[in-house]
Amino acid sequence: MTTTENVETRNGVDVSQLTHTVDAIGTDPDLANFRFRAHNVWLGGGRSRTEMHGFWGAGAEDTSRAEPFVLHGDEPPVLLGSNQAPNAVEAVLHALASCLAVGVTYNAAAQGIDVRSLEFDLEGRLDLHGFLGLSPDIRPGYQHIEVTYRIDSDAPDDVLDELCAHVQRTSPVLDMLRHPVEVSVTRT
Amino acid sequence: MTTTENVETRNGVDVSQLTHTVDAIGTDPDLANFRFRAHNVWLGGGRSRTEMHGFWGAGAEDTSRAEPFVLHGDEPPVLLGSNQAPNAVEAVLHALASCLAVGVTYNAAAQGIDVRSLEFDLEGRLDLHGFLGLSPDIRPGYQHIEVTYRIDSDAPDDVLDELCAHVQRTSPVLDMLRHPVEVSVTRT
Repeated sequence: MTTTENVETRNGVDVSQLTHTVDAIGTDPDLANFRFRAHNVWLGGGRSRTEMHGFWGAGAEDTSRAEPFVLHGDEPPVLLGSNQAPNAVEAVLHALASCLAVGVTYNAAAQGIDVRSLEFDLEGRLDLHGFLGLSPDIRPGYQHIEVTYRIDSDAPDDVLDELCAHVQRTSPVLDMLRHPVEVSVTRT
Repeated sequence: MTTTENVETRNGVDVSQLTHTVDAIGTDPDLANFRFRAHNVWLGGGRSRTEMHGFWGAGAEDTSRAEPFVLHGDEPPVLLGSNQAPNAVEAVLHALASCLAVGVTYNAAAQGIDVRSLEFDLEGRLDLHGFLGLSPDIRPGYQHIEVTYRIDSDAPDDVLDELCAHVQRTSPVLDMLRHPVEVSVTRT
C-alpha cells in the first residue's frame, strides 16, 4: 500500500495511522504477524454460536474489545434448520464482501481516492450432492462465486480498475477462496 | 449420508426429513442445486453491512425468511477500524466452525449417533505483509488454520474419528478453504 498525500482521514480511514503502520512493519516485520481466534458452541440442530474476542497482532495481545463479538449460524428449513441465522456458506459471502469493502476503501484512501459509496452483490452456486456425500465427484463447496460491485467515485475508470485489480491480489478472504489454505482439524 | 434408523429427531435434526431429502435428490438431481446470495453496503472506514435473504434451492426460490439476516463487519483499532464487529477473517473462522458443527451433528444424526455437546476452537495465522501489498511472496490470507474440537457422545472413538473424517470430506466451507474456488469479480 503506497500513500500519496498527507491527508488525515479519507473514506473514514486514518491515513496517517495507515502510513505509520506500514512504516512500523518495515522496521519490525514481526509486527505483521496476527493470530485471530474463534470459539464455537453447537446449540442443537443446525444452530451454533461463535464468539470472537481477543487476538494477537502488532506484537501484542489485543485488549481493545471489552466484550466478545457473537455470530450465529443456522440453516433454513429446507436444509433441516430453524432459520434463526444465515448459514455457513452465506457467512462466507459476508466474509468475502466485507473483506473486499475494506480492501477497496483502505487502498483507495492510501492512493488519495475518495469513495462516496460502495456496494457488492454476491452469488454462490452449490450442488448439495457434495455435502450429502451422494457423489464424490461433486465438490461440497461453491462451484462458482460471482461478485459484482458498484463504486461511486470521481476517479477515472482505469484508476478504479487498477484499484480493483490490486484489491484482488491482496484481499485475505479472496486469497483464501482462490488458493488452498492449510487447515488442521483435531479432536481433543 | 446414510441413515441407519427410523428415529424422527436426533441431535435436533429431523432424520426423516433428511432421508426424504436424500431420496428426492436421488429421483431429481436438479433439486440439489442451490444459489445463495448476499448484498453488502460499505458504511465508512472498515465498516460494512451484509444482508442475506432469499436463495434458490430444492427447485424453488426460498420464501421462508420474512426478513433478511444482517451481519456486520469492521476492523479493530489496530487495523484502522472502529471495533464495531468482527473482521472478515474472523468471519471466515465463524463460517468454518458453523459448517463443521452442522456437518458433525447432521451426519451423526444420520448414523444414529447422539451428540450431547460439541465445541470448536479455531485460530488462523496471518501475515499483514500480504494485505498491505508489502511483499508479493507473502499470501494475504491465513497461512494456517488450526481447528480443535471436543465432542461429548457415547459413540466409540473410532466411530467419532470416522465421522470427523467424513465431515472433513464433505464440509462445504472446509472444501472452499482447502481447494480453490472460482471467483469472478466485476465492476458494474
